[in-house]
Amino acid sequence: MIGLERMKDISRSSPSKIVFLVSDGLGGLADPATGETELESARKPNLDRIARMSLCGMTDPISTGITPGSAPGHLALFGYDPVQHDVGRGIVEALGIDLDLEPGDIAARGNFSTVDEAGIITDRRAGRLSTERNAELCRLLNDITVKGADISVVPVKEHRFVLILRGEGLAPELTDSDPQQAGLAPRRIEASSPQAGRTAEIANEFVSQAITRLRNESSANMVLLRGFSRRPDIPLIPEIYKLKPAAIAAYPMYRGLARLVGMEVLSTGESITEQVETLQQQYDRYDFFFIHFKHTDSRGEDGNFAAKVQAIEELDNAVPGLLSLDPEVLIVAGDHSTPAMLAMHSWHPVPFMLKSRWCRPDDVTEFSERACLAGGMGRFAATEIMPLAMANALKLDKFGA
Amino acid sequence: MIGLERMKDISRSSPSKIVFLVSDGLGGLADPATGETELESARKPNLDRIARMSLCGMTDPISTGITPGSAPGHLALFGYDPVQHDVGRGIVEALGIDLDLEPGDIAARGNFSTVDEAGIITDRRAGRLSTERNAELCRLLNDITVKGADISVVPVKEHRFVLILRGEGLAPELTDSDPQQAGLAPRRIEASSPQAGRTAEIANEFVSQAITRLRNESSANMVLLRGFSRRPDIPLIPEIYKLKPAAIAAYPMYRGLARLVGMEVLSTGESITEQVETLQQQYDRYDFFFIHFKHTDSRGEDGNFAAKVQAIEELDNAVPGLLSLDPEVLIVAGDHSTPAMLAMHSWHPVPFMLKSRWCRPDDVTEFSERACLAGGMGRFAATEIMPLAMANALKLDKFGA
Repeated sequence: MIGLERMKDISRSSPSKIVFLVSDGLGGLADPATGETELESARKPNLDRIARMSLCGMTDPISTGITPGSAPGHLALFGYDPVQHDVGRGIVEALGIDLDLEPGDIAARGNFSTVDEAGIITDRRAGRLSTERNAELCRLLNDITVKGADISVVPVKEHRFVLILRGEGLAPELTDSDPQQAGLAPRRIEASSPQAGRTAEIANEFVSQAITRLRNESSANMVLLRGFSRRPDIPLIPEIYKLKPAAIAAYPMYRGLARLVGMEVLSTGESITEQVETLQQQYDRYDFFFIHFKHTDSRGEDGNFAAKVQAIEELDNAVPGLLSLDPEVLIVAGDHSTPAMLAMHSWHPVPFMLKSRWCRPDDVTEFSERACLAGGMGRFAATEIMPLAMANALKLDKFGA
Repeated sequence: MIGLERMKDISRSSPSKIVFLVSDGLGGLADPATGETELESARKPNLDRIARMSLCGMTDPISTGITPGSAPGHLALFGYDPVQHDVGRGIVEALGIDLDLEPGDIAARGNFSTVDEAGIITDRRAGRLSTERNAELCRLLNDITVKGADISVVPVKEHRFVLILRGEGLAPELTDSDPQQAGLAPRRIEASSPQAGRTAEIANEFVSQAITRLRNESSANMVLLRGFSRRPDIPLIPEIYKLKPAAIAAYPMYRGLARLVGMEVLSTGESITEQVETLQQQYDRYDFFFIHFKHTDSRGEDGNFAAKVQAIEELDNAVPGLLSLDPEVLIVAGDHSTPAMLAMHSWHPVPFMLKSRWCRPDDVTEFSERACLAGGMGRFAATEIMPLAMANALKLDKFGA
């Protein structure tokens, strides 16, 4: 990899278009009963047709054996070293509810939880309180004022909320108050850099006022905070690649990640069919489209093999709508594997294909884990996808004389 | 990669010989009419015979998606990280006309060009003036004297020349005067490091005197300079690998690059047959031979598919002359792809094979893009070739106790 700074030097704007379809959690594992993975079990004539015209391979999202979260998985797809560019837990939580953060804002993930009379955590999730009750409690905490920062507390789902601190001179290097297990007391938040001392005091003062306001609650009588973080300072897609990028994603988390790297986020519907319609309507206005399909991951996380197969077939049905636009570069990839057999994100490499006039197709005739292994890219790092896409769109100058 | 410093520690001299045949721009793309690449279309029984005895693979010259210039492409083949070891435009231009540079010399690429009365560039190439006229103008500029540096101006082809500054205390960190597009004025050359201030003054003084001497020219009334650079300070092949290396190359650029890394450059003829004769004559005097075959690149750049196929067959005919010497290690590789379909250097991986008694051959039976993909090396970085060659020549000690 030549690095993002050098990439800026050789990339150039041109009318050619790149359509980057990301099927979340795409990779799978075989059902022992059939010996076939979700992709191998699905009826997907359109994806297989693309495979026959494509350069195929298997991507490692981070590195061998490492299971990515959503943020690093997507950063890698967008060409960022996910180890170097860390997105904190608090920021991911904020992106997940479509909060528009300012560069200096500090976000933390919060849990409503239960402590006993001795101050020991008995339930980290306060009996998974209802999302409605969560919203009421957040309103209560939103009134808290602490000198030196504006505080907002935004409900997520069940017991989860996001704490945002906004103000001059704040710093995100803070330890968690959440010990991440019951049977322990919440920890005092400490500064882990010299400049974060005041921010630690503010955070502890917030916790202390929150305890007072929650003192009459039977279960949600404590808050636990973790993952204090700030928006990472990363170069943006339009600067690095001179692209005009748009994101077509239904879920807030992916809209947030796309915004983080400088994409314009388009309004779209919930289904992949509506997403493809959005692509068709906006096709002339951008030269790079990130389309995010979520269901392959959700069904995988549910551990529902048949439903994940169905999600793949749903995706396959939408593919002709992409092909009809005949983009110069069409990519189908995933941010990680989510095998239904494991019912969680996993470390397994992910099938990949890129179709373009200049891609040098290989002998792969089917889009699946086993078939893509023999593809022209072999096994490779997901961070290599963006340079490959740019090359195939003829948007890169020669490197060196 | 263990790094060149560690490589020095474990390499040792021995009588075994390495013959490294580089077919410039070797890799290609399929002609849509036949579905076959240049290599797949060529009749090349000798290369295919070597493939059956070899360890095969596909090399990435720089990294995925990146199209190399000639200098980085060759540096990678010689084992140098081409991103770390940058060879400037001026140096490449000087190497291309076989100029023998001293370590401190600063070279810049020059264009004769045309400016209008307001000083705006109207033609960056002065109507592509003739090479003869170029030589006359260079003689005119060669008389320029500036305090602090010896100046030479050496004609290349058409509108191109090389400016060499030689003297004590010069530094190459200078911006270009060439804005690289018409409609703008030439820029003043600025120092981009503190120690380059005087060199910037010298360069600007040269430009100013050149304008005076060219004032009566109707088209070539300006010079544009870019890529100020110095010979990179890189460890040499004899130091790193304890080899006695010779280069057999017909084109000045590649002779220059070979000299840059410490090879002895042998006199040879224009054709690959003459180059192989040179190898046979000099075989006892060296233990490493870099043979550079240019025609695969030239015909590819011409966009002439049939002529590139013919160049491959021309190369194939010369192969028995290599095999008859029975070198301990024989390598056939390329510095990058130059698909005739694209008519330019490209980013595509390049077929590779290495034959030696110890190579652990794979199942590849043909020397082509598709076949080499399934080779024992898979897809790999071109910088790995030199360690592999050294190992197969049994010239490397164990790493670590």
